[in-house]
Amino acid sequence: MNTLGNKLRVTVFGQSHAPAIGCVVEGMPAGFAPDMEKLAAFMARRAPGQNAWSTNRKESDIPEVLSGLVEGRTCGAPVAAVIRNNDQHSKDYSGLRRTPRPSHADYTAFIKWGDDYDIRGGGQFSGRLTAPLCFAGGLALQLLEARGVTVAAHIDQIAGVSDTAPDFAAVDRADLTALLKKPFPVFEDDAGMAMRQAIEAARMDADSVGGVIRCFALGFPAGVGEPMFAGVENRLAGALFGIPAVRGVSFGAGFAAAGMRGSAHNDPFHMDAGRVAARTNHAGGVLGGITTGMPLVVNVGVKPTASISREQDTVDLETGEDAKLVIHGRHDPCIVPRAVPVVEAVTALTLFDMLLEG
Amino acid sequence: MNTLGNKLRVTVFGQSHAPAIGCVVEGMPAGFAPDMEKLAAFMARRAPGQNAWSTNRKESDIPEVLSGLVEGRTCGAPVAAVIRNNDQHSKDYSGLRRTPRPSHADYTAFIKWGDDYDIRGGGQFSGRLTAPLCFAGGLALQLLEARGVTVAAHIDQIAGVSDTAPDFAAVDRADLTALLKKPFPVFEDDAGMAMRQAIEAARMDADSVGGVIRCFALGFPAGVGEPMFAGVENRLAGALFGIPAVRGVSFGAGFAAAGMRGSAHNDPFHMDAGRVAARTNHAGGVLGGITTGMPLVVNVGVKPTASISREQDTVDLETGEDAKLVIHGRHDPCIVPRAVPVVEAVTALTLFDMLLEG
Amino acid sequence: MNTLGNKLRVTVFGQSHAPAIGCVVEGMPAGFAPDMEKLAAFMARRAPGQNAWSTNRKESDIPEVLSGLVEGRTCGAPVAAVIRNNDQHSKDYSGLRRTPRPSHADYTAFIKWGDDYDIRGGGQFSGRLTAPLCFAGGLALQLLEARGVTVAAHIDQIAGVSDTAPDFAAVDRADLTALLKKPFPVFEDDAGMAMRQAIEAARMDADSVGGVIRCFALGFPAGVGEPMFAGVENRLAGALFGIPAVRGVSFGAGFAAAGMRGSAHNDPFHMDAGRVAARTNHAGGVLGGITTGMPLVVNVGVKPTASISREQDTVDLETGEDAKLVIHGRHDPCIVPRAVPVVEAVTALTLFDMLLEG
Amino acid sequence: MNTLGNKLRVTVFGQSHAPAIGCVVEGMPAGFAPDMEKLAAFMARRAPGQNAWSTNRKESDIPEVLSGLVEGRTCGAPVAAVIRNNDQHSKDYSGLRRTPRPSHADYTAFIKWGDDYDIRGGGQFSGRLTAPLCFAGGLALQLLEARGVTVAAHIDQIAGVSDTAPDFAAVDRADLTALLKKPFPVFEDDAGMAMRQAIEAARMDADSVGGVIRCFALGFPAGVGEPMFAGVENRLAGALFGIPAVRGVSFGAGFAAAGMRGSAHNDPFHMDAGRVAARTNHAGGVLGGITTGMPLVVNVGVKPTASISREQDTVDLETGEDAKLVIHGRHDPCIVPRAVPVVEAVTALTLFDMLLEG
Repeated sequence: MNTLGNKLRVTVFGQSHAPAIGCVVEGMPAGFAPDMEKLAAFMARRAPGQNAWSTNRKESDIPEVLSGLVEGRTCGAPVAAVIRNNDQHSKDYSGLRRTPRPSHADYTAFIKWGDDYDIRGGGQFSGRLTAPLCFAGGLALQLLEARGVTVAAHIDQIAGVSDTAPDFAAVDRADLTALLKKPFPVFEDDAGMAMRQAIEAARMDADSVGGVIRCFALGFPAGVGEPMFAGVENRLAGALFGIPAVRGVSFGAGFAAAGMRGSAHNDPFHMDAGRVAARTNHAGGVLGGITTGMPLVVNVGVKPTASISREQDTVDLETGEDAKLVIHGRHDPCIVPRAVPVVEAVTALTLFDMLLEG
Repeated sequence: MNTLGNKLRVTVFGQSHAPAIGCVVEGMPAGFAPDMEKLAAFMARRAPGQNAWSTNRKESDIPEVLSGLVEGRTCGAPVAAVIRNNDQHSKDYSGLRRTPRPSHADYTAFIKWGDDYDIRGGGQFSGRLTAPLCFAGGLALQLLEARGVTVAAHIDQIAGVSDTAPDFAAVDRADLTALLKKPFPVFEDDAGMAMRQAIEAARMDADSVGGVIRCFALGFPAGVGEPMFAGVENRLAGALFGIPAVRGVSFGAGFAAAGMRGSAHNDPFHMDAGRVAARTNHAGGVLGGITTGMPLVVNVGVKPTASISREQDTVDLETGEDAKLVIHGRHDPCIVPRAVPVVEAVTALTLFDMLLEG
Repeated sequence: MNTLGNKLRVTVFGQSHAPAIGCVVEGMPAGFAPDMEKLAAFMARRAPGQNAWSTNRKESDIPEVLSGLVEGRTCGAPVAAVIRNNDQHSKDYSGLRRTPRPSHADYTAFIKWGDDYDIRGGGQFSGRLTAPLCFAGGLALQLLEARGVTVAAHIDQIAGVSDTAPDFAAVDRADLTALLKKPFPVFEDDAGMAMRQAIEAARMDADSVGGVIRCFALGFPAGVGEPMFAGVENRLAGALFGIPAVRGVSFGAGFAAAGMRGSAHNDPFHMDAGRVAARTNHAGGVLGGITTGMPLVVNVGVKPTASISREQDTVDLETGEDAKLVIHGRHDPCIVPRAVPVVEAVTALTLFDMLLEG
Repeated sequence: MNTLGNKLRVTVFGQSHAPAIGCVVEGMPAGFAPDMEKLAAFMARRAPGQNAWSTNRKESDIPEVLSGLVEGRTCGAPVAAVIRNNDQHSKDYSGLRRTPRPSHADYTAFIKWGDDYDIRGGGQFSGRLTAPLCFAGGLALQLLEARGVTVAAHIDQIAGVSDTAPDFAAVDRADLTALLKKPFPVFEDDAGMAMRQAIEAARMDADSVGGVIRCFALGFPAGVGEPMFAGVENRLAGALFGIPAVRGVSFGAGFAAAGMRGSAHNDPFHMDAGRVAARTNHAGGVLGGITTGMPLVVNVGVKPTASISREQDTVDLETGEDAKLVIHGRHDPCIVPRAVPVVEAVTALTLFDMLLEG
C-alpha cells in the first residue's frame, strides 16, 4: 500500500488533482525540533518549475503540519502534514482515459480500478506524491544527521553521460557536503554540464531521457540489518522501488559485480587506525543483509520520462482499436535531477527506521 | 527476519551445520496434492555435487514433511518440512572466527552477535538455506502452473559472456519449457558453453565468477499489485535480495533504461487478437507497481563467490592486526547455475502470494 | 501504533489541541459512493454536547475529505480526512503535567515521552481521536451494509443496570434496525431510563460510571477467519482495545462461560430451513477463530470515566511528593453511550478488513 | 495465521495426528543458554495424563531442537523445535467429519477447507498445538526472568468456585513464586480443592467445566507499549485469544470495572519509597496502552471443554439432516489447569517481544 516502515512509519496520501496530498509519520521520537527552514530547502530541491529540466508547474508546496508538533517539537504523536493542490489543469487529461499513455500506469490502473481511477494529473501515481515523501524524509535526514549519519546522492548517469564518484571505500563527508550544495548534484561538473545538454537535446526533440542515481550514507553503524528477508538490501530496495520510474536497485558494484572475478570483487579487510575497514567497498557497505560500517552505496536506475509530447501508438479502450496519442501538459524531459532528493528521502526513512528497530 | 510473504508465508530456519534446516509454509491452499517427484526434480537443480561447477558436498536433501499434508494433500494447516544435515566438515571452519573472510557475512555476523554466531559452514548465511526455499518455491511453482502461470529463468550472463533472450514482448511458453529442460539454462547453447569454460577457467585460477539471472513469468494476470510501496517490483526485489550473493534487481530493460530515450523505451500499446498488448516490453510487465499482463521480466545480479581458495588479506579480530587467510573447504567457483532455481522459487513464492492477496 | 487493519488500513492522527485530527484509509474499494449524510448522522452519535450525559464541548466535527474521492466516488487511492480542532480550552490543562490524573494516561505518557508529551486535552489519548475512527468506520459500515452485513451495538450495562438482549441465536435484523434508531441504544427502554438516572446520579456526585457495550454483526459470512493468532477474536480484540477506556473484550457468553458446564454452553447444531444453524449461540458466532455464520456477538467492558471533578490523591512529579488534584474542564460522567458508535466503527473496520482478506 | 510477535516471532505448526508439531522462534537474542531442565519442567505442567483432571493421552513431548543452538547457546539464528506425535488413535475421529461436534472448530474448518481439513484429533485446532507454544514461551519466561520479570498465573475460578488473589497493587514475588510451585496453582488451597471436586463432579456427569485464569507479571518496566492499536492490552489480547477455548480477556478489574464508580475505580498515585506507585491497581498495570510499572494483571476466560461424552445434537453434513453425536476418545473435563502454563507462555512471549521492540 502507501505505507513505508515499521517503527518509523510513513503513510502517503493524495492524488495530483485532489484537494491535497500529504503524509502521516508514526513513530517519530519525541522531543525533536525539526529545522523547518532546512526542511523547506530540502523540499525545494524536488519542487518543479525551477529550471530548464523540470516542468513549469508552480507548486508552493508549503506543508501544513496538522499534528505531532507542540511549539515546534515532536510530542510522540504521529506527525501529519498536508500540502494543498492549487495549480491544477485538469482539462489536460480528459482524453487519456480512453487512450492510455505508453509506459505509464494509466492502463494498469484501468485494469485494477476500471473507470473509477483518478486519471487527472496521474492521480495517485503522480510524481507529485513524492513531495510528502520528501517532507517525511527530510525529517529523517535531520534525525540521522543528529546521530552522525549523512545521506547524499549524486547523478551517476543521464542519457549515457557518466559522473565519476570517489572510490566507495574512500568517499568522505566533505564529498557529500559538497554534493548537497550543488543544484545539479554531480562530482564532476563537466559531466553535469554534458548531462544537462543531453536533457535539453531530448526536450528539443520532444523526447525524454533517464539516468542512474547513486546514494551514499556515511556514519551509519555496523551491525544493523538482518539476514535473509529483512536485510538492508531488501528493505532499501523494497522502499526505493516505490519511487515512480525506478527500474533497478543495486548495491555497491551492483550489476557490474556480475562481470568481475571474486579476487577482484572481494573487499579485503585491513586495520585502519585501529578499526576494521575494507580496502575496497564493492559490497556497498552491506554483507549478508547487515551493515559493515563502510559507506553504504545504493544505485537506482531511473527510466526516461514516459510522458513525451511526440505522437505515440496506443489503443482506444472504448472501441478496442489501435489509436494515436499526443500528450499535452507539462512534463519533465528528465526526472532524474528532481528524483535525487527523493532517493535521499526514501533512503533516510528506511535507514532511520532500521536504526529504531535496533 | 527469515519470513517471506503475507498470505502465503514462508519461514526458513537452520544453519549449515545445525541438526537440520527447513521451513514452515503458512497459507497453503487446502486440497492441493503436490507432485513430489516433480518437486524433488526441481530441488535437485539446486543441489550441489552434480557437475563441474558446483561443490562436491553431497546432500541427500530429501525433505521430510512434518505437517500440513494428509494422504498427500494439503489440509489448510501450515506445511513444515525438514532437511537433515548429514555431510558436515565442521573442522574446516575453525579458524575463520578470528579472520573473517572478505566479502562474506562472517564479519557482519561477528558485529551483530559476537562470538555466539554459528560460523560453521556459513551458519545461517549458508547457501544451503536456499534448499528449504526451493522446497517452498517448488510448491508455489506447481500452484502457479495449475493457474496457468509459468516461471522460468535463464542465465543471462556469466563472467561477461552473455546469452540472448527472446524479445521480452514475444517470449512464449515454448521458450520457457525448453529452458526448464536444460541442465544449464541458456537460450543459446554456444553462450552456455562459453560460460562454462569461463567458470572452469576461474576454478583453475582458484578464483570465482558472477553473473546475471533473468526470470520470466508468463500467464500472470494483469492488474495485480499496488502503487507505491507494495508494488510487484517492491515485493519481488524485497524477496530476491534474500538470496545470498544477489547485488542487484531490475525489471525489464532495467538499468539499461537509464541510457534510453523515452521514445525508444516506451512500450506502445496495440490490439493483439482482441487484447491490449504492448509492442515492446521494456517495462518487464509492470507499470506503477501493477502488472500489465505482458511477460514479467526480472533481472538478478549475482556477485562472484566470495569464498575463493587464493590467499587473501583480512584482519585478525583477536590481535587487531592485519592477517592473511586461505579458505579451505568446498566452494562453487560460480553459484549462478545453482541460483537459477532459487530465483524461480523466490519469484514464484512472491507471485503466488500476490495472487492470493488479490 | 495508530494503524489498524491489513487490506483496509486506517491510520489515525492528531491530538485534542493540535490544529487537526484525522485519518487515512488505505485499501478502500474503488467505485464506492459513500452516503455522506448517513455518515454525518453516524458521526453525530459520537459527538459530544448533545445531551445530559456528555461534555459541553461543541465540535463541528465536519470532516474535510482531502483525497481518495473523485466526484463523490472512491478512486482506489487512500481516503484522507481531516477534522479541525476549534473549541479548545488549553488553559484547563496547564497544571496536569506536574500532577498526573489517576487512571489516565498522563503518567504513562510522561514515562514514555517525558515533558514532550502533549498533555493539552489528553493529547493523542483524547477520546476525540475516536472521531476519525468513526469517519473510517462509518464508511466500513456502509460497505458492509451493501454486502448484507448489519452491525449494531447496544448498551448492555451501565452502573450495574442491565439491558436484556435477544437470544444470541435469534437476534435479527429488525432488532438491530430498531437499536440503530435510538438515541440511547438499549433493547429495554426501562433499563435505558434507569441507566440514564444512574449517570445523572454520578454526575451530581461529581463522579462517573462505566458499563458494557455489546455489538452484533448479522449477515457476516461463515468461514471467515484463521486459526490461532489471526482469528476473528484476536483481530476484534486487538482492535477494540484501541478504544480509550476499554478494559475487557469477550465473545458470546464471554466470561460467563467460565461458570457454565459444557452441556449447557455447547451450541447444538440443527438444520434450519435447509441450512446448518446452532440452537444457542454462546460462541458468539465464532469457533476456532473462524465465523460460524451465526450472529457475531462481542462484549466490550468500559471503565468509568477517569476524569472526575472530585479531589483526588496523586503525586507531584516535580517535587516527588504526594499531592491533591482537582480536575477542571468538561468530562462525560459516562462515556459508554458515546462509545457505542465507536465500538460499531471499530468492529466494522475489522470485519470489512477480514472480508477483503478473504 | 500461526505467527505471533514482531521482533520475537513464533510460528507454530503441526496437527494432532501429523508426524510432528513444532515451532520456529525468530529473533531470539544470541548468547542465551536456556536451562533445558527448567524448560522441560515448565512444559510438563501443560502435558496431559498426569492427574485426574486431564486426558490419559501419554505424550513424551520431548522437543528436538533442530537449529538456533550451538553447544546449548542461542546463536542468532531462528530456534526450531519439533515434537513427534506418537500416541495417536486416529480411528476415534472417523465419524466426526459428517457430524461436527458442537462448539468445536469442526464445522468452521469444514466451511473453510471442505473435506480437506485434517479432522484427526482436532487437527490444527488441537490443544496439543499449545505444546510448542509452551516450548517457545518457556524460553521467553527464562529471558524475562533474567531481566527481573516474573510471570505467573493462578486459577481464579472454575465452575463458579473462586480463588482469592492478593490485592493487585500488593502482589509480590513471593506470592508468584509460591504459585509456580503448586501443581494446582491457586492462592487458597481450599478453593483449589473445591475446584477439583467440581471438575471431578463434571467428569462423573460426562460433562465439563470452564474457568478463569489470571496472569500476573512483576518487574516489567513502566513506559512499555503504545497508544491506540499497539498497546499492551491490544497485543496481549490479540495473542491470548490464540489459545483454544479462550472466550474473554480483560485487564485488572476487567468487566467488573463496568459496575464501579470512577471514584472507586481510579487508582490514586502516591509516593512509595521514592517511587511513583498507585494505591490500588484496578488498571492492571496499564493505562492508555502503556505500562505503569505496577503489576500487570490479565484475566482470561476459558469455556468448558466442548468435547463431552454425552450424546449431543448435531447435523449430518452429508444428508443435511439433524443427527445425534457421541464423542469418543480422551478429553479433559476441564482444560483450565493445563491452560495455566499456556497463558503464562503466551503472556511471556508477548511481553518479551514488546521489551525487544523498545
